[in-house]
Amino acid sequence: MSHTQALAGFLAGLSYQQLPDSVLARTEELFLDWLGSALASQGAHPIPLFERYARHMGPADGPARILVNGRGSSAYFAALVNAASSHLVEQDDLHNSAVLHPATVVFPAALAAAQDLGKSGQDLLLAAVAGYEAGIRIGEFMGRSHYRIFHTTATVGTLAAAVAVGKLMDFDQAQFIDLLGSAGTQAAGLWEFLRDAADSKQLHTAKAAADGLLAAYLTRDGLTGARDILEGEQGMAAGMSWDAEPSRLSDRLGSRWALLETSFKFHASCRHTHPAADALLALMQREGLSHEQIAQVETRVHQGAIDVLGRVDVPQTVHQAKFSMGTVLGLIAVHGKAGLPEFHELALKDPAVAAFRDKVAMLLDPEVDRAYPQRWLGRVRVSTVDGRILHGAIDEPKGDPGNGLSRAELEDKFQRLLRFSGARTVEQGAALIRQVWHLRDTAQLNELL
Amino acid sequence: MSHTQALAGFLAGLSYQQLPDSVLARTEELFLDWLGSALASQGAHPIPLFERYARHMGPADGPARILVNGRGSSAYFAALVNAASSHLVEQDDLHNSAVLHPATVVFPAALAAAQDLGKSGQDLLLAAVAGYEAGIRIGEFMGRSHYRIFHTTATVGTLAAAVAVGKLMDFDQAQFIDLLGSAGTQAAGLWEFLRDAADSKQLHTAKAAADGLLAAYLTRDGLTGARDILEGEQGMAAGMSWDAEPSRLSDRLGSRWALLETSFKFHASCRHTHPAADALLALMQREGLSHEQIAQVETRVHQGAIDVLGRVDVPQTVHQAKFSMGTVLGLIAVHGKAGLPEFHELALKDPAVAAFRDKVAMLLDPEVDRAYPQRWLGRVRVSTVDGRILHGAIDEPKGDPGNGLSRAELEDKFQRLLRFSGARTVEQGAALIRQVWHLRDTAQLNELL
Repeated sequence: MSHTQALAGFLAGLSYQQLPDSVLARTEELFLDWLGSALASQGAHPIPLFERYARHMGPADGPARILVNGRGSSAYFAALVNAASSHLVEQDDLHNSAVLHPATVVFPAALAAAQDLGKSGQDLLLAAVAGYEAGIRIGEFMGRSHYRIFHTTATVGTLAAAVAVGKLMDFDQAQFIDLLGSAGTQAAGLWEFLRDAADSKQLHTAKAAADGLLAAYLTRDGLTGARDILEGEQGMAAGMSWDAEPSRLSDRLGSRWALLETSFKFHASCRHTHPAADALLALMQREGLSHEQIAQVETRVHQGAIDVLGRVDVPQTVHQAKFSMGTVLGLIAVHGKAGLPEFHELALKDPAVAAFRDKVAMLLDPEVDRAYPQRWLGRVRVSTVDGRILHGAIDEPKGDPGNGLSRAELEDKFQRLLRFSGARTVEQGAALIRQVWHLRDTAQLNELL
Repeated sequence: MSHTQALAGFLAGLSYQQLPDSVLARTEELFLDWLGSALASQGAHPIPLFERYARHMGPADGPARILVNGRGSSAYFAALVNAASSHLVEQDDLHNSAVLHPATVVFPAALAAAQDLGKSGQDLLLAAVAGYEAGIRIGEFMGRSHYRIFHTTATVGTLAAAVAVGKLMDFDQAQFIDLLGSAGTQAAGLWEFLRDAADSKQLHTAKAAADGLLAAYLTRDGLTGARDILEGEQGMAAGMSWDAEPSRLSDRLGSRWALLETSFKFHASCRHTHPAADALLALMQREGLSHEQIAQVETRVHQGAIDVLGRVDVPQTVHQAKFSMGTVLGLIAVHGKAGLPEFHELALKDPAVAAFRDKVAMLLDPEVDRAYPQRWLGRVRVSTVDGRILHGAIDEPKGDPGNGLSRAELEDKFQRLLRFSGARTVEQGAALIRQVWHLRDTAQLNELL
């Protein structure tokens, strides 16, 4: 049996009863976190473009709900718009070693299909777990080389979304193999857009969720796919990776819950900046340093951080600022925070942040690079204006599984996300929180939200 | 100015008045040929799956027409279903050196958008030319290495379709650059499905046309894309090619009409089998040989033929038979033809064809390989049962620009395609032919077809 067959067999056999309570609880938390991210982007470019596209190309109404505007549509367009929405503010979750943001592709597809198919909260939770477990393993399988050019959340995200919808449709092993084939052959998404601060990141997640959902509906109706899309000679790894590890596809299926390893985002910036941000903050607090006392910061990072962040010198947009290591550290140093309000009000406008930005350099660190992507180590070397050399280090950024967010912290983050866009009132936010904490008792998801 | 910028500038400036009459006439011929291919697949798996998907996810009616069932839908779903339809019977056109089937991606997107936007026949022709000229150059740019793993009609097809729709929307140079960025970052499609005879080829063309159209509508409304998606360090060539040639992107823009180099398909099989089929047929006619007199056939081919055809030993489906060199030569040797009826009635059922199939071998030929993809040379070495060794050679397969189909031959092929599926009567077919020969005088394309 190939690794792909083993994975497909696991997905087909996975049952709700089999899910540990810790997994169910975490899935609810991840769902809340995703919902907040989606609502936080209401009204922000380029989300209205996707809403307009859905109105123009889709039905006037439908069983699936577009979150940012409350309209009904078909599952395809709800998945498209909701996935575009939930990655914009860079506050959605991340799996470290897969370098995959699972929520922003899995939940839009799963929720839209669940509403279309009349499924329950338990069905949705089971589908999401299947999407996470498959997507994370496929991301790990594709390896670091893939991520150097391809946006894994876009490429692998297509398969993760497809699997979640396939699970809602009770696929058997053969159907999951066809599904992976039809999803994998649609997998796309290049990092090239980053240096121009172009809008492709939203396009990527939108398309990953919607394409994955499309693959599942067509597979249900009988479309066949390549049986070895991951490992085959003309498959995804052959075309888009040079360090793929097939054994990762079937890594401890049923005993390792990869979903539990997912990190929540604390800062509102690209995850690659978080280890250094936490290390700098810890050092400044330890030493009682203010930003004026700092002459220079060297962040010692992994290669992936240089690949993704290296392009941006002087950010021109808020989105680009989230990929600027100097700007993120500037916000941390000057304001102690790099949340959504700080990015929108200060990242491009505060001269103190800009001045700090120019003091920051990135350097490849062999130790940090070796640990990555299993562990995201934060290492900074600070020179002070009075000539001292100080070192800061953290081994687990805030939000990582071993340094996680409590439900209270998640609720607070959720409310801040809603307040940021004005998408819902505090009371509406509280009602949503209650609904999500009771997701496993919800019979009909179209009543939700 | 980069090659991409030059290409975008050319596309923005291209006008109907600038198109030579030979280009306009050939575009009408290519459109008729495409229309026949789309209608020929009516009712054939997996096309009904795409129709059902469009009904479930799209609006109940709309300005764009789904050809195989005559229903109205939005432009997105019309492009999706029509592009799935037009590549199924393997009778649509091909550009040799780009290894791209332009019609099956360009026309579905352009026609659907033209109907949606209320454009004229002249607008459609101009849009199609833009799509062909861009798509062919991008295909050549991506090189042979791309085609070894990626289905160029799927990947590059996304950009060709996008450009056609962008031209209907009168994009300027900057919009075309954004458009290429948003289309290129969606480019996907792997050959892995071939060895399983899976349905992905239809999924690929469907998605290329629909994704390209989506990119154009979003670009029109303001979505930005990577400015260097083709040549950039994390762009298409960087991720999916190792022999890309940037200068091909701007090759003789405005003086070379690449559309005129497109080949019509004569046999109903994968184009890689055509040179050998024509060479064998010429040899058998020249020597007055029957299939029983042939003991062995060695076809001397280019590497691309081995990559694409090498997987199929004993075809299990009609579609797979079209990729079996032995089966194609068997049909030619035993029945003198490898058209749609022969494939459906004889390819898998006639023992004489199967017996001939086992006499056929493929061998890499350095001369043939060097000439490819600019020229598709046919070379066969035949051993007869009475011990003779005979050689057959053709330098331009039937349907190539220098060995093309007349309008009468195209009309005949069109009517045979319609008869094959029963999609239209002979009279209806004749009316469609008349409409297409007057495309440039058609004010409203929603009246067409």
